[in-house]
Amino acid sequence: MINMKRKGLLIVISGPSGAGKGTICKELIKRNSDICISVSATTRAPRKGEIDGESYFFMEKQDFKDDILKGNFLEYAEVYGNFYGTPKEKVFERLESGQDVILEIDIQGALKVKEVYPKGVFIFILPPSMEELKNRIIGRGSETPESLMTRFESAFEELNFVSRYNYAVVNDDVDIATSRIENIIEAENCRVDRVGNELIKKFGRR
Amino acid sequence: MINMKRKGLLIVISGPSGAGKGTICKELIKRNSDICISVSATTRAPRKGEIDGESYFFMEKQDFKDDILKGNFLEYAEVYGNFYGTPKEKVFERLESGQDVILEIDIQGALKVKEVYPKGVFIFILPPSMEELKNRIIGRGSETPESLMTRFESAFEELNFVSRYNYAVVNDDVDIATSRIENIIEAENCRVDRVGNELIKKFGRR
Repeated sequence: MINMKRKGLLIVISGPSGAGKGTICKELIKRNSDICISVSATTRAPRKGEIDGESYFFMEKQDFKDDILKGNFLEYAEVYGNFYGTPKEKVFERLESGQDVILEIDIQGALKVKEVYPKGVFIFILPPSMEELKNRIIGRGSETPESLMTRFESAFEELNFVSRYNYAVVNDDVDIATSRIENIIEAENCRVDRVGNELIKKFGRR
Repeated sequence: MINMKRKGLLIVISGPSGAGKGTICKELIKRNSDICISVSATTRAPRKGEIDGESYFFMEKQDFKDDILKGNFLEYAEVYGNFYGTPKEKVFERLESGQDVILEIDIQGALKVKEVYPKGVFIFILPPSMEELKNRIIGRGSETPESLMTRFESAFEELNFVSRYNYAVVNDDVDIATSRIENIIEAENCRVDRVGNELIKKFGRR
């Protein structure tokens, strides 16, 4: 058997709010103990039940700003006065050790990650229909009618960004969508532009 | 559920002699009744047990030459005075109707197909090791020592062409290799550059 020792894959799971990114990522990790998920850092206060280092790395605003200046984030954003970001070093360490890392992230974040790490596998999660997306956003029940319309409009706009991704997966069923992502990961591990050099070393040298 | 009505995929299974292309293709078709395999045309005489239209389309040399001039082959080659080729129309009809088509073909043929149909999925089948490739070629028992060395040398040379393919699949186990190819097909069906336009039509138009 060929030793295809390689870097891990950075698998970016992204898409509009309500598409079901979070549920799919949970299922993916449940099924694949060898894949790990990147935990984001944030300056917002922990909500009830959230665990530091699991839900998020909770940080003081000043520390976060210092880390920005040090270039410690793969991407970051300020949303309603709070910062959110992806700690770079943890992700890169794992990739170097050959582990696949999942990044569950919004579209703006994914596009920033693509700029600095285009070798990532960029997967856009789609709702089965706009109607269903609306139902899911409403179903969360945590929105006012105004913020709901804003969310819905912005989800609609965001769908146009699908063209910047490598793959689109329709989340009509969490199990099926998760299996599709597993297939994508398997296929990416057979791509010649990822494993070609290893193969040529193994076979092609005279 | 989004209707992802699309063209079929042209899946080109290629690699050096002895890598196990044929066995993998048989398994792939056994498992997936919706995938069909392209039957080659040839001017060589049928061998015992070969069925016209299944093993090959057996043709007269003059008819084959006429078809070449008419541009009826996706690729063709002359080997030891016999012609072999892939009938173009049958393949394209099936792709248009949305059916996936497998082409089991040698490396020279695959590279020609890539020129005229770069949208194909080009998969290179690798033996688990050069030692194993040697054993498999010997195991066929139909070779003289000289032709065996020639075959082996040429297989070795051919491995360098892996870089022209999209995917490399190591055939250490037929079941696993076949599953890898199934994963690749599934993943290709999620590629934005294949389904993007359908998605944008469905969701993105205001």
